[in-house]
Amino acid sequence: MQDNERLKKQLAFALEIDKEKNIFRQTHLSNKGRNENDAEHAWHMAIMAYLLREYSNEKVDIGRVMLMCLIHDIVEIDAGDTYAYDEEGLATQKEREDAAKERIFSLLPDDQKEELIALFDEFEDCKTAESKYAHAMDNLQPLILNDSNGGGDWRAHNVCAKQIYGRQEKTRLGSETLYTYTDQVIQRNIQEGNIRK
Amino acid sequence: MQDNERLKKQLAFALEIDKEKNIFRQTHLSNKGRNENDAEHAWHMAIMAYLLREYSNEKVDIGRVMLMCLIHDIVEIDAGDTYAYDEEGLATQKEREDAAKERIFSLLPDDQKEELIALFDEFEDCKTAESKYAHAMDNLQPLILNDSNGGGDWRAHNVCAKQIYGRQEKTRLGSETLYTYTDQVIQRNIQEGNIRK
Repeated sequence: MQDNERLKKQLAFALEIDKEKNIFRQTHLSNKGRNENDAEHAWHMAIMAYLLREYSNEKVDIGRVMLMCLIHDIVEIDAGDTYAYDEEGLATQKEREDAAKERIFSLLPDDQKEELIALFDEFEDCKTAESKYAHAMDNLQPLILNDSNGGGDWRAHNVCAKQIYGRQEKTRLGSETLYTYTDQVIQRNIQEGNIRK
Repeated sequence: MQDNERLKKQLAFALEIDKEKNIFRQTHLSNKGRNENDAEHAWHMAIMAYLLREYSNEKVDIGRVMLMCLIHDIVEIDAGDTYAYDEEGLATQKEREDAAKERIFSLLPDDQKEELIALFDEFEDCKTAESKYAHAMDNLQPLILNDSNGGGDWRAHNVCAKQIYGRQEKTRLGSETLYTYTDQVIQRNIQEGNIRK
């Protein structure tokens, strides 16, 4: 093998990220299934990103969006999942995730470490066309699951409309069309009593 | 919304594929974890495909490879997972998977149905550069998990070297470098008694 050390590092990273399959989210699978984990969520988002790319407000490099979706939660291996409406958790989220980012991506060869950290930061900053559209997926994917389950996750956390609309602002940055759909779903779930007014 | 029917179909498909998270494989997660499901496996493969693309024998369109990895097991929602060394299951696998392919991809708008079926078939046929490299990932991903668990999945199924080398021929078509690595892992596991000679 030409460059065994490089391959070893890449495979060490590949093995490490297996742990993302043990990081569980608040969202439940359809048909009132178990809690979803981060790896499944990322897989689902990446496919949805590809299929719905025609609705992105701006033209995107869809390969970059998909990769961004696939890696955007890797830091949660160390930092854990922070529920979108957990205000205490959100206060320390950045610090926990920065330490995780450095540890986990450092398993890779330097060039790939830099590349993936840049892509991760791009997602977090949410300024480019790709990251805005990826955030729309990060919101839409749990929304369709939760809606299919009669809004059970919103009810369980007693979430109010203002909190949801706050989060969905990023959906709008990525896709006006998908925001319109999201708005209809939220309004229906408010009427059905699944989301507090 | 300009074309509500189109979006509805796309989201119906997105919701349907959620079921892939309930299709469990024979492979176990690292640290002797639970069985892995198809969605997690596909997520893992797609990231590995991106990181290891330098080892592909032929130049590949990595975005297409990643999408191929992400969707290659969707038919198992209906057809179930067929273990790589289950000869009875393998005999009926194609028929079961063809019916599933038609049902599940038909949820999409026609253009996307055709596109995804073509990509799925391309993976199965394993003739293009992208599909050969994707098959290398389909083999390498469970291999690194199984190897990290002391070859437990091979032992549990009493798999012999000939069966494994048969399957790994596709790894070689995709990547000579990764085949060399795979060969080292198999040889070590034979020596350790995890794979029958």
